[in-house]
Amino acid sequence: MKFCSHCSAPLTFKIPAGEDRERFVCERCGTIHYQNPRIIAGCLPLWEGKILLCRRAIEPRYGFWTLPAGFMELGETLDQAAIRETREEACAEVESHGLYTVYSLPHVNQVHIFFRAELIDGRFAPGPESLETRLFEETEIPWDELAFSTVRRTLESFLEDKSRDRFEVKVGDLLPSPVMRQNPTPC
Amino acid sequence: MKFCSHCSAPLTFKIPAGEDRERFVCERCGTIHYQNPRIIAGCLPLWEGKILLCRRAIEPRYGFWTLPAGFMELGETLDQAAIRETREEACAEVESHGLYTVYSLPHVNQVHIFFRAELIDGRFAPGPESLETRLFEETEIPWDELAFSTVRRTLESFLEDKSRDRFEVKVGDLLPSPVMRQNPTPC
Repeated sequence: MKFCSHCSAPLTFKIPAGEDRERFVCERCGTIHYQNPRIIAGCLPLWEGKILLCRRAIEPRYGFWTLPAGFMELGETLDQAAIRETREEACAEVESHGLYTVYSLPHVNQVHIFFRAELIDGRFAPGPESLETRLFEETEIPWDELAFSTVRRTLESFLEDKSRDRFEVKVGDLLPSPVMRQNPTPC
Repeated sequence: MKFCSHCSAPLTFKIPAGEDRERFVCERCGTIHYQNPRIIAGCLPLWEGKILLCRRAIEPRYGFWTLPAGFMELGETLDQAAIRETREEACAEVESHGLYTVYSLPHVNQVHIFFRAELIDGRFAPGPESLETRLFEETEIPWDELAFSTVRRTLESFLEDKSRDRFEVKVGDLLPSPVMRQNPTPC
């Protein structure tokens, strides 16, 4: 962030009066340009007990498997965002079965939020951002080829909760692993 | 948003290639300026069974009572943000007792997230953004003077859950009331 998006003047990075941390500030028009974490919303979609995963056709993590998820857009609710992302990435219509996991990823300024969901008619297909979409039995999940740690944790929690038939909302923080610190793929 | 924050060129509002909605796009350097909802994180802080509220010293809703809450910052986890806001607005140190409410407010592009929390040493005082801080018995809550609908809903849920001694995460959407549509105070 170099220039003011309101008046085009160069920005200064400084602590504004009355605040306690550095912000991008426009000395010409006075605008403070706040930056905040973003939300990734997604689904854990089921059909006949199997889990729908998407193989990514985009970076980061091209070729790896993920739950359908993406950036929440303006004007959406959380579950609308999760349902839209499932439609876009897996061409699947789902009904939300409620909030399931909430993970903070402070090193990438993101919060990942997943809902449990059920396919409405069992139909799915790769969207433009997916190479492949497939239903996986519990024993078939490609653990070594998952795209993101929040996807792994959501799937692990789901299988654990399923085994005792009790689903509770999970909340946590996910920091980069030592390997990821060296080789910064996101999340 | 009028000018590119990377190169200062005027922005165009259009649908970028491969996308499905309008964005602010820089025709000179090619940057797409995404805008996303922001997270408000806060606490429902308890001390000896009473609830700590803050009377706002800032707009919007100057003079109305709120749970301590504010915008999540870069580099934070959700509970760090909620704890920091409680420190800033009520000069109180709290221990989180877990995620409690999650509300989408699509009309203001916000998600409000509250944690149940307990004061660590019972100390509190108004921070710079509060006129007053006070512990309220259940029967004393100033329902007609609450600042935001998400605060009201969180308090209502808490009292209901408390009466049956079982606390569960609540998720929902809050749209503006007809009155608020006419007189747009946030949330």
